Amino acid sequence: MPRFKCIISYDGAGFFGYQVQARGRTVQGELERVLTEIHKGKRTRVTASGRTDARVHAVGQVIHFDTDYSIPAERWPVVLNQKLPDDIVVMNVEEADPDFHARFQTSGKEYRYVIDRGEFPTPFRRHYAVHHPVTIDLALMREAARHFVGEHDFTSFSVAKSAVVDRVRTIEYFDIIEQGSEWIFIVKGNGFLYNMVRIMVGTLLEVGSGKYTPADIPEMLKAKNRSAAGKTAPPHGLYLWKVEYGERGKGKVSEEIVE
Amino acid sequence: MPRFKCIISYDGAGFFGYQVQARGRTVQGELERVLTEIHKGKRTRVTASGRTDARVHAVGQVIHFDTDYSIPAERWPVVLNQKLPDDIVVMNVEEADPDFHARFQTSGKEYRYVIDRGEFPTPFRRHYAVHHPVTIDLALMREAARHFVGEHDFTSFSVAKSAVVDRVRTIEYFDIIEQGSEWIFIVKGNGFLYNMVRIMVGTLLEVGSGKYTPADIPEMLKAKNRSAAGKTAPPHGLYLWKVEYGERGKGKVSEEIVE
Repeated sequence: MPRFKCIISYDGAGFFGYQVQARGRTVQGELERVLTEIHKGKRTRVTASGRTDARVHAVGQVIHFDTDYSIPAERWPVVLNQKLPDDIVVMNVEEADPDFHARFQTSGKEYRYVIDRGEFPTPFRRHYAVHHPVTIDLALMREAARHFVGEHDFTSFSVAKSAVVDRVRTIEYFDIIEQGSEWIFIVKGNGFLYNMVRIMVGTLLEVGSGKYTPADIPEMLKAKNRSAAGKTAPPHGLYLWKVEYGERGKGKVSEEIVE
Repeated sequence: MPRFKCIISYDGAGFFGYQVQARGRTVQGELERVLTEIHKGKRTRVTASGRTDARVHAVGQVIHFDTDYSIPAERWPVVLNQKLPDDIVVMNVEEADPDFHARFQTSGKEYRYVIDRGEFPTPFRRHYAVHHPVTIDLALMREAARHFVGEHDFTSFSVAKSAVVDRVRTIEYFDIIEQGSEWIFIVKGNGFLYNMVRIMVGTLLEVGSGKYTPADIPEMLKAKNRSAAGKTAPPHGLYLWKVEYGERGKGKVSEEIVE
């Protein structure tokens, strides 16, 4: 059966996260409801590159699904967007190899995290950027972020309760840019542990305000203990920006998902 | 009694417009509710530079209110923002002359209108930019916009039913800039008639798509008839960006308000 790879964008504000669960509205739930409807009631499942938490956004989440409907790839976004709620948008669909896998073949992911530096929060951005008006030193945060680049054991920067065994990940870059009154953290790696971006950003913000120094980051990594690192930044500043696919096994699978 | 001038920003998505009315939640209603609560039940009114319609946003709306509470100006934003819902934010408060009037002393207003040019709508921007993916010619729209600059009778660009007698307004500039996948119309004038910005933008979009030519704009102005101009663009792309105050009488009062 033909397999389709889709790039989707969603506003996390109205969801209990990506993954289907009992509690409420989810991105996966909406996608599968619409696909099942299009397939006249035949249950159709989607597989994502990884889940995102409640209130976390995606600009370029990737999913795949199988279908024997003869709709050409370029028509699928129109067909899906007509039926999807307006906080999920299918940006691109292409036919993939039948053995393509949105989760197991990732080679890299880019996340972005947005903070609003205005004295008072911008009302239009209250679901899309975390208001953080306190004095922070951008140069110190940038210096600290460089310590994350490279291959490290990120145990200190993931939730303590995680059952994942291999916590070594490689960060390719970690930049912080200014855009108007917002600062954007941009981090790319071959995989991320659960809450890893939010804990790294939370820790960098505490470097910026002087609680930690850039030199503390290597010590935190060495400690391999969640309590050695800083706070977890709130979810609504986080965006899954881009997912890359390369040779099988190059990337680290989002092992945080218990499927 | 001391008078305070406030710059406020609000997300229009959740309001039935600025002005208090029976139907539902309004910006004025929320402001007066909070101010009355702060004044321990003593009814406190606010006066704005002009109203905005349902779903229209404001970055720099200006209001004034009178109070004999001895809170210094710089503390007022903090006190108000603590009690206001998070879709209204007080950005700045300063003590004004007792005869300052937010509506009658305006000398100019800038509005912005944002369209999303992506092939599919950006979900985060669905309340903040109007998705307009069709092929349009930016150069033609810019040429057409220049015809609005200067002093004209804008009868054709205001709602037909309006009771306003003097429909002559002066447009200082009307630019269109590109910002990522969005295009932003920026227009400043000494005053605007009801729906005037939305009708001008709607007409420019129809110039861009070839229904009208730039040379049609002077003809539309001359016609002094709403049916001569183009469509009214939707409300959620519109922002009241800035309100200026100068010598009394320099600006045109927002006469569209029936108070």
